[in-house]
Amino acid sequence: MSKFRAEIAEQPVVAARLLEHGRPRAASIAERIREAAPRGFAIAARGSSDNAALYAKYLFGIRNRALVALAAPSLFTHYGKPPRLEGECVIGISQSGESPDVIAVVEEARRQGSLTLAITNESGSRLAATAELVLPLEAGPEVSVPASKTYTASVLALALISEALDPDPGFRSALDAVPHAITRTLEREGELESLVPGLMGPRAIVLGRGFNFSTAEEIALKLSETSYVLARAWSVADFEHGPIAIMEAGLPALFVDGGGIVAANLESVKAQLVAKGCPVLHLLDVTGLPEELTPITLAVAGQLLAHHVAVARGFDPDRPRTIHKVTRTW
Amino acid sequence: MSKFRAEIAEQPVVAARLLEHGRPRAASIAERIREAAPRGFAIAARGSSDNAALYAKYLFGIRNRALVALAAPSLFTHYGKPPRLEGECVIGISQSGESPDVIAVVEEARRQGSLTLAITNESGSRLAATAELVLPLEAGPEVSVPASKTYTASVLALALISEALDPDPGFRSALDAVPHAITRTLEREGELESLVPGLMGPRAIVLGRGFNFSTAEEIALKLSETSYVLARAWSVADFEHGPIAIMEAGLPALFVDGGGIVAANLESVKAQLVAKGCPVLHLLDVTGLPEELTPITLAVAGQLLAHHVAVARGFDPDRPRTIHKVTRTW
Repeated sequence: MSKFRAEIAEQPVVAARLLEHGRPRAASIAERIREAAPRGFAIAARGSSDNAALYAKYLFGIRNRALVALAAPSLFTHYGKPPRLEGECVIGISQSGESPDVIAVVEEARRQGSLTLAITNESGSRLAATAELVLPLEAGPEVSVPASKTYTASVLALALISEALDPDPGFRSALDAVPHAITRTLEREGELESLVPGLMGPRAIVLGRGFNFSTAEEIALKLSETSYVLARAWSVADFEHGPIAIMEAGLPALFVDGGGIVAANLESVKAQLVAKGCPVLHLLDVTGLPEELTPITLAVAGQLLAHHVAVARGFDPDRPRTIHKVTRTW
Repeated sequence: MSKFRAEIAEQPVVAARLLEHGRPRAASIAERIREAAPRGFAIAARGSSDNAALYAKYLFGIRNRALVALAAPSLFTHYGKPPRLEGECVIGISQSGESPDVIAVVEEARRQGSLTLAITNESGSRLAATAELVLPLEAGPEVSVPASKTYTASVLALALISEALDPDPGFRSALDAVPHAITRTLEREGELESLVPGLMGPRAIVLGRGFNFSTAEEIALKLSETSYVLARAWSVADFEHGPIAIMEAGLPALFVDGGGIVAANLESVKAQLVAKGCPVLHLLDVTGLPEELTPITLAVAGQLLAHHVAVARGFDPDRPRTIHKVTRTW
């Protein structure tokens, strides 16, 4: 078994540990955020972590009514002209905690007096040392190059903070159900394998909306990085008014569907694609989680899928052709 | 000549008109923004206009030191749970001014008492009627489905607002040079045609960074929509720490290069791709514009390129397979 596949399998345990250890930490963090009463959030991240940040844009927006800006790190590094961040709560997400440009954003935010929070798997990292507050993911070492457990742990960490900021018994018990929901998703691996023949390349489209736009981006990234199928994600909303023109017989579309109020929107596009002769693949969450938390289980499903496509195409998911584990970008 | 190509050619005149009429308007708008002293900007847009918004994230960030959040319209529509926008200046960008979800964001912003601005080609549109302030693009009717002149006009309109907020003689005269720089870019059409054989599909990667990350996204969208080459844009910073694994002999990479401090960064990635046997194509701005304004001329170059690729592949850029001109998304 590849390390990637082994780490995918760890996710129920990782999620349970994060719920246990992360909840009291999220409560203290939320306390500090409430004291600081930020006007909104700015999040700095790269790669997969940036997709977790995109999730937060929807989650904090909808659950906490907070405006989330995704920081452009090059403003802080290359251009050296950072925006004003006073009054923002600035979050850096980096599994290694060593991504220099994420650190640069958090450093600048502290200089400006903003409240800062690091979400990282390495509590001894420079990012953790730089931020005022830290939420450790405690996912254990992630050996495989493509991120799996640190991605879903980052998403869950953000959900814990959202819940701590605006407690709600329903959302709280849904969070408790996450580890079991991941287990159920892993048990459906056999069903996922049936999607593999439709994704043998060289191209794929991944579609989501709302909370799962971030999941669509993450699955497209995972497919591109591990199986070398060039996958492009679109929000269904953008897709049907432009990029849908690219669809032709044989070009597969993978729908990432967490149910909820956007599901009907997916259906109308799906019908158009079937009519064009496109293989239409459907990742549907059936764990019973509320839509807000399906980005966790659907990301797990996407990881399994990327793994199986990589193997079917003869690639080793543990040895991508040119990736280094720590994102060092200057 | 296709309507798309004809409208591409109109851009020097459109830019000159916008400089003449838009400058006094941008001055009044900047006056109102200074009075309101917003804490930052939130921008709502779809498709190409969203790429103009991405440009503003860099331009307003670097020139005006303002944090820019790109609004997720579905929070306002599908989910009906908009974030708090008090103290933000909220900008809606829509060439038609009839995109319902962009209108919904601006409506909500007014309800919350935020300063609102519409950037649109249709001053009689619902978006223009909804926003407190309007900057009309005056680009003339855009008949072709893929946007060209309204895209560069939106970018220029944002640059006019940035300049009016923080006047600078150098930037001001660079703005004056834009129409001529577009003309010079159009004159280089013959050179661009040499890039066409490298982009005959089915896949392409488009790379930019900083100001021209937005241009890379816009060119990838234009290629996908008009020539049906699945093009995926990445910021070079993200690309070299993950997605670069997808590169293999024959997969072309188009570099969007506005010079400036990120050019060296592009060079190191380019060398890696050449070593892998990837066709490396280079869109370099040689008009002498400062990096901040090259997203205009490079977008024009990208439009020409998308047009020629579409024609070479036997498609009619005026009749995309499934696009409707007005983005109506609910």
